[in-house]
Amino acid sequence: MKQVTGAVCTRCGHIVAADPDITVCPKCGGILDIQYDYDYIRSHVSKYDLLDRADPTMWRYLEFLPVEGLGTRPRLRVGGSPLYRADALARRLGIDTLWIKDDGLNPTASLKDRASAMAVVKAEEAGRSVIACSSTGNAASSLAGNAAAAGLSTYIFVPSRAPKGKVAQLLMFGATVVLVEGSYEDTFRLSAEAIDRWGWYNRNAAINPYLMEGKKTVSLEIAEQLQFRMPDYVALSVGDGCTIAGVWKGFRDLFEAGFIDRLPRLISVQASGCCPINTAAAAHTMDWTPQEENTIADSIAVGVPRNPVKALRAIEESHGVTVNVSDEEILAAMRMLGRYAGVFAEPAGAAGSAGLKKAVEQGLIEKNASVVSIVTGNGLKDVNNAIRAAGEPIAIPADMDCLLKAFDERGISPA
Amino acid sequence: MKQVTGAVCTRCGHIVAADPDITVCPKCGGILDIQYDYDYIRSHVSKYDLLDRADPTMWRYLEFLPVEGLGTRPRLRVGGSPLYRADALARRLGIDTLWIKDDGLNPTASLKDRASAMAVVKAEEAGRSVIACSSTGNAASSLAGNAAAAGLSTYIFVPSRAPKGKVAQLLMFGATVVLVEGSYEDTFRLSAEAIDRWGWYNRNAAINPYLMEGKKTVSLEIAEQLQFRMPDYVALSVGDGCTIAGVWKGFRDLFEAGFIDRLPRLISVQASGCCPINTAAAAHTMDWTPQEENTIADSIAVGVPRNPVKALRAIEESHGVTVNVSDEEILAAMRMLGRYAGVFAEPAGAAGSAGLKKAVEQGLIEKNASVVSIVTGNGLKDVNNAIRAAGEPIAIPADMDCLLKAFDERGISPA
Repeated sequence: MKQVTGAVCTRCGHIVAADPDITVCPKCGGILDIQYDYDYIRSHVSKYDLLDRADPTMWRYLEFLPVEGLGTRPRLRVGGSPLYRADALARRLGIDTLWIKDDGLNPTASLKDRASAMAVVKAEEAGRSVIACSSTGNAASSLAGNAAAAGLSTYIFVPSRAPKGKVAQLLMFGATVVLVEGSYEDTFRLSAEAIDRWGWYNRNAAINPYLMEGKKTVSLEIAEQLQFRMPDYVALSVGDGCTIAGVWKGFRDLFEAGFIDRLPRLISVQASGCCPINTAAAAHTMDWTPQEENTIADSIAVGVPRNPVKALRAIEESHGVTVNVSDEEILAAMRMLGRYAGVFAEPAGAAGSAGLKKAVEQGLIEKNASVVSIVTGNGLKDVNNAIRAAGEPIAIPADMDCLLKAFDERGISPA
Repeated sequence: MKQVTGAVCTRCGHIVAADPDITVCPKCGGILDIQYDYDYIRSHVSKYDLLDRADPTMWRYLEFLPVEGLGTRPRLRVGGSPLYRADALARRLGIDTLWIKDDGLNPTASLKDRASAMAVVKAEEAGRSVIACSSTGNAASSLAGNAAAAGLSTYIFVPSRAPKGKVAQLLMFGATVVLVEGSYEDTFRLSAEAIDRWGWYNRNAAINPYLMEGKKTVSLEIAEQLQFRMPDYVALSVGDGCTIAGVWKGFRDLFEAGFIDRLPRLISVQASGCCPINTAAAAHTMDWTPQEENTIADSIAVGVPRNPVKALRAIEESHGVTVNVSDEEILAAMRMLGRYAGVFAEPAGAAGSAGLKKAVEQGLIEKNASVVSIVTGNGLKDVNNAIRAAGEPIAIPADMDCLLKAFDERGISPA
């Protein structure tokens, strides 16, 4: 791993060797951040090399990733998700240019596959065959799927409010699933205790610094798909803070390596009912306060974020915009993405676009802006909320006159 | 469209011009089949050209497809689904080599996206901006999604018994959904009347001969992903017959164009509770008999198949193997795919693999065979059956003693 120089503590600055099973800072318990030798990277790969590569997965960016190699175990096709130019949606939102990055098309239907694919590789490097995590859903199902493909075992701790689809996915992938009666915080605590007790490989994104390095590949892809011409903004939803931190790290890496000449501003979107990171970011402080978890967007309902430091730094460094959205605004964004872009998002997946819409309406970003909005998870993960968002169909007897009357009543001219 | 010579009736042999809005044979009402000039194709593209192409979608095979071009409308990224080498599963099944083609990773999570993407392009060619179909399943949701991306409208007729989740997906994509109080037959009749009345483009796979041409791209991909070295068998589930007919057409096209030097044998899998095509195929007759629809695999629960002719010919020509599987065998295959390959399939999506397992056990195929098994749809489409297949998670309070007790009771040794 000559591209990696070490792991630095985000709290005390202490540097440790980048062993495959590092977790938090041994000195102060702070979260670690993987550091790279950008001269080394630059001398081993160019952006033109990347554009020529055949591998469609996140591993096409190997020089930017903290791995020795990929080993021989089978793996799912993670990454390479489409970036759709969405002109109809841009017009509707009143901005110049919009792209939708549909990360719901990953193998287990969320962006978290990128982190879990990384966890599997690092667990192999560390010589472990069991991986564990606690999660509201997507981190878990992605871990279970990616580990199953590679032949590793998983123990997964999920809060009891997780949607049934997500739990079913875990069980289908052969994970041992523990449904914990309590909050995400309770769930996290029990999983940490169990991981300590049995020495499992830890796939908890805030503790394992490698996972963010997997997540950052979404940014490497966005940049490459735009031929390394950066948009003004990148919008995404924020829960425990790991994803936005990863997204920022990806852009920073490309900038440091000289592959892009400017950095986009982040639009950090949280649910109004659970927005501890945005509240602190808007006040330009690192002092965040725990909040309740009142939102339908379960994947970002994190009242006690596990990675506030990296997230808050990412928002600050990018001169980011913070927006909080109501559940109604999230449901409306789900309809908007479906109708005008053909993209079906889960609530947390649509929240970034809901926030973008609101940021435009409130004049927080310019009308002539170019924006990438990341859809972090697929709507099939949460059908109950899709039903809530979707409204009602036309219900009639099997009769043409009834059809004509129904169209007429609704002002539909089908000609 | 110089690669296309016309459309021939599968019943009476009458040939018509390949206009974009042809449906059935104007002489006898038989199903049409698109015909190609393989010399023309061969002189315009080689298999080495294909391997070099950057377009990751089904449209990379443009010379093999009945379209003028792709126009300028945005479209979803259909096709380019992964082909996983599944050694752990092969060992479990007792065969030499197995690949899983995961077509559940298409944009709306099923193979049907390939047909619907084709429908959208042909509707545009025909100058239509409205497409209609009657279906509750994957055909409808894929049509709604692909049309939404391209800015076309859809009218979708569903029987009132349609599950809410499926209706929700249609509504999310902005389709006008007409819920018809009556049977599927009533629904179909009203949709046909409306299509006639308003001149909408007709997306019905058995009536519109172009849709199968979209579906065949799954075979073109499989061949290319295997460097044009064919497996001995290709296993897949069969409902109305259009998909297996499309799969066979793809391999035939490649064979006729000289891109592959042998054809795989098809393993046609139906549910024991609804197997009219396999029953006829096993008796080597084209005389099939309608059956009841008794299976959890709703996507292949077709008692009156709409494309039996092409399906039965495909099975016969390929010296195919027919296998019928019970619902229990389908649920077991869902677990097997998840646990040993990290692939989450809906019941109809797993049925092909269930049939493969049974074919090996019954000695219908050789132990040293190489097989591709196609997963036609994602498990997130049918969470209730996934839960049925998966069993229940461990549910406990957030307490280590409860966890220890739960593991102990279940004989789990997590060390």
